[in-house]
Amino acid sequence: MSQFSYGALEVARLKEAQMPVSAGFDPEGNLTRDPSQVIASRRILPAGYWKGAALSFVLDIFAACLALGKTTAAIGRLQGDEHGISQVFIAIDYRRIAPEGATQAILDDAVDNVLASIADGSGERISYPGQRRVNVIEENTVHGIPVDDLVWEKILGL
Amino acid sequence: MSQFSYGALEVARLKEAQMPVSAGFDPEGNLTRDPSQVIASRRILPAGYWKGAALSFVLDIFAACLALGKTTAAIGRLQGDEHGISQVFIAIDYRRIAPEGATQAILDDAVDNVLASIADGSGERISYPGQRRVNVIEENTVHGIPVDDLVWEKILGL
Repeated sequence: MSQFSYGALEVARLKEAQMPVSAGFDPEGNLTRDPSQVIASRRILPAGYWKGAALSFVLDIFAACLALGKTTAAIGRLQGDEHGISQVFIAIDYRRIAPEGATQAILDDAVDNVLASIADGSGERISYPGQRRVNVIEENTVHGIPVDDLVWEKILGL
Repeated sequence: MSQFSYGALEVARLKEAQMPVSAGFDPEGNLTRDPSQVIASRRILPAGYWKGAALSFVLDIFAACLALGKTTAAIGRLQGDEHGISQVFIAIDYRRIAPEGATQAILDDAVDNVLASIADGSGERISYPGQRRVNVIEENTVHGIPVDDLVWEKILGL
């Protein structure tokens, strides 16, 4: 569970942009925001530093033990393609536990609280987790999935 | 789910130490490693920045909807003591799903992999999540719970 996906690093690398916070280590072991350096070292930082690394480790062994699939460590030892990865889905129908009216009020209040936050002046719109996804799905349904021009050229050249 | 607990900030403040990474914002809205500044602003950073904030939000509404307790937002509106907080415990007996020998092998391999990591030269011992806790429990059982000297003086002065 890294702070940035390798996909996000790759997009930034193509734009020659730096990441907004430290993304990992360079090959010499120094923290860096340079995506190329992190892609080269493959030493990406976990989201949440040590706290996130511990959570990630616990979720990793939890998923592997429930799915009897591979842990991150075992995937790292594979030659070539990743396979046998672990996936766990837990579905909880909370309407069986709590009345729907009560939970809807809790959800609305939590969302309203986030949206009422004071902006920091950077010009970014305040949104709750998942809110932008709705727009992205709508846009992609109408206009298709965006692909980086350089990547698209590469695909066309195959 | 902050990167540092207010307890950790308080301990660092008493030692006049800086946090190892940005802990939050100062009252002027700049990122800072100074625990006093973050305690003053009460604008602590989530573990994992935006990614952790989103995870934290989702876990918050999940817990509140299952427990019909308060969300973080609702606790923030309370005057005085925190009460009605949400707690959810999910117990999964994975031995009902997976044979114990297989899971033990997965766990041992994951732990061995962490312990076989190459140290970064800072002199800190490599440990897996929970490993140091065993020593802490043993020490505290023998020698008692450590309390900061300044805090202890305050308690004695009550």
